[in-house]
Amino acid sequence: MHTKYLLPLAAVATAALLPTMGLAQDTAAAAEEVVEAAAAVDNAFIFNTLLFLISGFLVFWMAAGFAMLEAGLVRSKNVTMQLTKNISLFSVAAIMYWLIGYGIMYPGDNWLVQGWLGPFFSLANLGGDPALDVGYATGSDFFFQLMFCATTASIVSGTLAERMKLWPFLVFVVVLTGFIYPIEASWQWGGGWLSEAGFSDFAGSTLVHAAGGAAALAGAIILGPRIGKYKDGRVTPMPGSNLALATLGTFILWLGWFGFNGGSQLALGTEADANAVAIIFANTNMAAAAGAVTALILTQLLYGKVDLTMVLNGALAGLVSITAGPLDPTLFGALWIGAIGGVIVVFAVPMLDKLKIDDVVGAIPVHLLAGFWGTLAVPFYTEGTSFGTQIFGFVAIGAFVFVTSLIVWVILKAVMGLRVSAEAEVNGLDVSELGMEAYPDFTKG
Amino acid sequence: MHTKYLLPLAAVATAALLPTMGLAQDTAAAAEEVVEAAAAVDNAFIFNTLLFLISGFLVFWMAAGFAMLEAGLVRSKNVTMQLTKNISLFSVAAIMYWLIGYGIMYPGDNWLVQGWLGPFFSLANLGGDPALDVGYATGSDFFFQLMFCATTASIVSGTLAERMKLWPFLVFVVVLTGFIYPIEASWQWGGGWLSEAGFSDFAGSTLVHAAGGAAALAGAIILGPRIGKYKDGRVTPMPGSNLALATLGTFILWLGWFGFNGGSQLALGTEADANAVAIIFANTNMAAAAGAVTALILTQLLYGKVDLTMVLNGALAGLVSITAGPLDPTLFGALWIGAIGGVIVVFAVPMLDKLKIDDVVGAIPVHLLAGFWGTLAVPFYTEGTSFGTQIFGFVAIGAFVFVTSLIVWVILKAVMGLRVSAEAEVNGLDVSELGMEAYPDFTKG
Amino acid sequence: MHTKYLLPLAAVATAALLPTMGLAQDTAAAAEEVVEAAAAVDNAFIFNTLLFLISGFLVFWMAAGFAMLEAGLVRSKNVTMQLTKNISLFSVAAIMYWLIGYGIMYPGDNWLVQGWLGPFFSLANLGGDPALDVGYATGSDFFFQLMFCATTASIVSGTLAERMKLWPFLVFVVVLTGFIYPIEASWQWGGGWLSEAGFSDFAGSTLVHAAGGAAALAGAIILGPRIGKYKDGRVTPMPGSNLALATLGTFILWLGWFGFNGGSQLALGTEADANAVAIIFANTNMAAAAGAVTALILTQLLYGKVDLTMVLNGALAGLVSITAGPLDPTLFGALWIGAIGGVIVVFAVPMLDKLKIDDVVGAIPVHLLAGFWGTLAVPFYTEGTSFGTQIFGFVAIGAFVFVTSLIVWVILKAVMGLRVSAEAEVNGLDVSELGMEAYPDFTKG
Repeated sequence: MHTKYLLPLAAVATAALLPTMGLAQDTAAAAEEVVEAAAAVDNAFIFNTLLFLISGFLVFWMAAGFAMLEAGLVRSKNVTMQLTKNISLFSVAAIMYWLIGYGIMYPGDNWLVQGWLGPFFSLANLGGDPALDVGYATGSDFFFQLMFCATTASIVSGTLAERMKLWPFLVFVVVLTGFIYPIEASWQWGGGWLSEAGFSDFAGSTLVHAAGGAAALAGAIILGPRIGKYKDGRVTPMPGSNLALATLGTFILWLGWFGFNGGSQLALGTEADANAVAIIFANTNMAAAAGAVTALILTQLLYGKVDLTMVLNGALAGLVSITAGPLDPTLFGALWIGAIGGVIVVFAVPMLDKLKIDDVVGAIPVHLLAGFWGTLAVPFYTEGTSFGTQIFGFVAIGAFVFVTSLIVWVILKAVMGLRVSAEAEVNGLDVSELGMEAYPDFTKG
Repeated sequence: MHTKYLLPLAAVATAALLPTMGLAQDTAAAAEEVVEAAAAVDNAFIFNTLLFLISGFLVFWMAAGFAMLEAGLVRSKNVTMQLTKNISLFSVAAIMYWLIGYGIMYPGDNWLVQGWLGPFFSLANLGGDPALDVGYATGSDFFFQLMFCATTASIVSGTLAERMKLWPFLVFVVVLTGFIYPIEASWQWGGGWLSEAGFSDFAGSTLVHAAGGAAALAGAIILGPRIGKYKDGRVTPMPGSNLALATLGTFILWLGWFGFNGGSQLALGTEADANAVAIIFANTNMAAAAGAVTALILTQLLYGKVDLTMVLNGALAGLVSITAGPLDPTLFGALWIGAIGGVIVVFAVPMLDKLKIDDVVGAIPVHLLAGFWGTLAVPFYTEGTSFGTQIFGFVAIGAFVFVTSLIVWVILKAVMGLRVSAEAEVNGLDVSELGMEAYPDFTKG
Repeated sequence: MHTKYLLPLAAVATAALLPTMGLAQDTAAAAEEVVEAAAAVDNAFIFNTLLFLISGFLVFWMAAGFAMLEAGLVRSKNVTMQLTKNISLFSVAAIMYWLIGYGIMYPGDNWLVQGWLGPFFSLANLGGDPALDVGYATGSDFFFQLMFCATTASIVSGTLAERMKLWPFLVFVVVLTGFIYPIEASWQWGGGWLSEAGFSDFAGSTLVHAAGGAAALAGAIILGPRIGKYKDGRVTPMPGSNLALATLGTFILWLGWFGFNGGSQLALGTEADANAVAIIFANTNMAAAAGAVTALILTQLLYGKVDLTMVLNGALAGLVSITAGPLDPTLFGALWIGAIGGVIVVFAVPMLDKLKIDDVVGAIPVHLLAGFWGTLAVPFYTEGTSFGTQIFGFVAIGAFVFVTSLIVWVILKAVMGLRVSAEAEVNGLDVSELGMEAYPDFTKG
């Protein structure tokens, strides 16, 4: 019904008919034209752009996954707040990454344009002519990279749930997505010093997941545990209010991760790239499955009962573990790397409780610790990488994010206060802070 | 493992080898064959089709988004009914758009075939040979366009929730998706008089969203408010039963909107088209984020507390606002256009309550009013459009849909009755109309 | 920002310029080079791979759909167990299909490598050079096929809910996904005897859905009904705890089915393939809509009230019905084939209850019976197929899966026991088996 499409073959036709004129120099010129016309038929630009767009919407979907996972793992009296934080943090990230972050992360010739004139920048202009020497649409790259920045912020909200005020949290997100993440990500993906040092982090076990986990850890230390969580030397379980939502969130994250890792191949325009993306999909799935099965078996063995929340976090830890190097391992490699991720979660969750670090959803084990493991595991399968450089890169980024986050949290605590009042916390943030229950028809007494 | 694929290059081979025969006329003929063969290598047809299919399944997913949003915003006693309406309206739309709508919307040479012999029409036959001069698979266009028709109907169900019977609602959907939407959409997207008048509505701020909103407004007026909603000059809040579902629905809609707007480029077969789709994705995301952040800040300022349902509707209003022109604005343009959408929602929701128009989920502000704003905003960035024509087009379609819907609602009220009994409404539609609770284990007394 | 992409056109350039040398044999050689270079521009490999990857992630998403559907249809006291089974069965399937299943299903030259050296096999090596004579990336095929295997297992869990222990269920999944499914699927999709006999099952009405349903039926017979379900000759309704989740699950499955059926075209690299995938999408959607509308109308007529769970299962039955032949029917064909699926569900659900076969979610009517109908319906539209062969194939696979499953269930019953204790069943599996409620804040008394 729609008639809109372009026919680049007109140029081919013109060029191909020229040789009939018969002269050698004409033939040479005509051959050149054939080549140029054929170039117009080449579709690498479209494939690469399509990869960014599909992967980008899958990673966008992870924002919903975090929202559901966290809404399911907090108590019903804090669900509205957790949902509000999640949709707000994504929106803030979308604006800050455009306003500041993207320009910091990719400090090229056009840094000033992107970075400081950012508010008005047009992706159409920025991309110039869509041409083969760019390789993909700038807008698709921006869209894809933005989602990674937002993911980093999503990781933080779960750890700090059930006791932190909304606005200081969002101010932290402003700093994290506008500055902290873009700066550390520029060290590697912006062609910075860490990439030159030989560090390898394909899709961001360190740059995204450990970074988010480090920011969360800093926040958890400054914020302190929930009231009653650690009392008389005992850990009080505070079970999540909706495990169906938590499971849905995990499935959403698992789905989104195909875009997260697959899109990080950054190209789909050749058979080699398509092959690579396919291997990444298969390895990513295997690592998640292995993490889940490991947590399933381990919790049965350790506690005599399977723990669903551990199985969910096991799957997520498997995914984080394979993220630093999803392309090079065999499927067996993906399996054991993911499985160790599952082991880490099962042992780290109670360990954090011993340290009285109250991580409501287990984001620190899943993203920071499995992120370290995934980064460390890269040299087992990827040539030209070394354990030393991997540790060095992890420490550099982890320390930078942890320290800067700590400073921001301390300042926010002094200026705005981080915690709601004890009374508000006991009554639940939904009623006390927002005046709106998530499940007004159901909640007990 | 599978060996099925075709090699269009055989033709290239044949053609390319012909020149070795050496005669001028042979060379000319051979050159033509090269061109034809190269055409076979051209993949615009596949890319365009793929864009429709991916975008189509994303817009399909919006049906689930509306279902979750509405199920979350109604009270628990009406959830089964709301879910039933949503899955049913989509199914009815899928049948009516095929039976009648598609033929009305695209009144080409084959209108009779499609429109009246529709029940038996085969997409394979309709598309004829899949050839370059079509540009995409007919089936993919049908699939994509169908989803827009269904979206229009999805908008209506939320406004009229908690008091309307199932069957008259579905009869309205029959008329809306079989006739009203296809007629007005044909004026613009079917190459009709409105497109010739210079009206511009890229993905349907007016054609889909305002149309759905106008049909909902007509219904709300005829149907009247829920019992007890407006009493003694006060507005009684009737809070939604599940804000986690409502948030999930919003994220689903946000995700689906990338297909809604991106697919409306209608082509992906050239670099320029790929670039355009990428810009649309980035702008769509920005407008949603801006609408959400605006509602976040405004509700804090106006009410002293953030209102999650406003933030959700703010994001949706941002999306509706950018839908009429998602390609041409800069990212800053998308931001302020979306932000004004958020402002509209925050002020229009209480305004509707003052008018005693009971819109359960806020669909009229989000789809009708932000749809108007989005349509009006097009000339700020799109050359060749004018505010006058935009207003004219909006009024033409809004008036047509409102009046025809009003007539249908009035007839249905007379013939079938629209409202459940007062007793049924108070007890909830789930038990009284369907005999099935959505949450039988949870609901309070 | 990223500079990674390849330019296969360099070869074209070289080849095209050669003719200027003027000699006939040079010209011939040059022409061959042009052809080879043009082949590099051909993108069928990338399109085919992309189809597998997109379809694969859509079918992955169906695992979440089954989890939500089943979590919504069981009582709240068994939700954690149902979620645990669903994420675990997918993870187990992912490992078993790689370890054993894939090698059994495609017994080619490299069977030993894949099958028995499987634990260490690399998709990169297996696929060899990504070349035109393969047609797609091996990793993408593995990823896609794996999802079908997992779907077969997902079907089983719902039927056996609310009374079966976790571990024997997972052991059954090990056998089903490692052996039973791959063996029967190899008969058809592995190029085995059934495909040579002329059986036709495009996307698996029999191979996946009826197989899953047959395994579930065998389990339901061995396991017996839930306590109190059939008492004193009456059927006690045990309503699902969360119809919003069940509806979400249905929408997820509907969405995933576009990948399930569309991806089964196995190729997207030509216009004919793109056209076919588009027709499959449109037909799949139509069959689902027709199944839903049929159940909607039928339950109104039969019971005087619409039954949402029947509408959901009607949509799913429509989807299963079109799965054996989604390409060849007209849209009207898809409509009536899907509608009969809806009829089957409405009549078969109470029929099973009369037989005292307790199928908690209706998986046997939806997958086994509608799967039979879908398989039977193929010859109405697909040339070269016969009703006899279709029945024969269905019986062969159904009998094989039913008998082998029955044996496995009997062995598991003897060795591990299948059912939880009566006390555990009454108290709910969540508390008794897992010690973790799904909705601890809400559940009544």
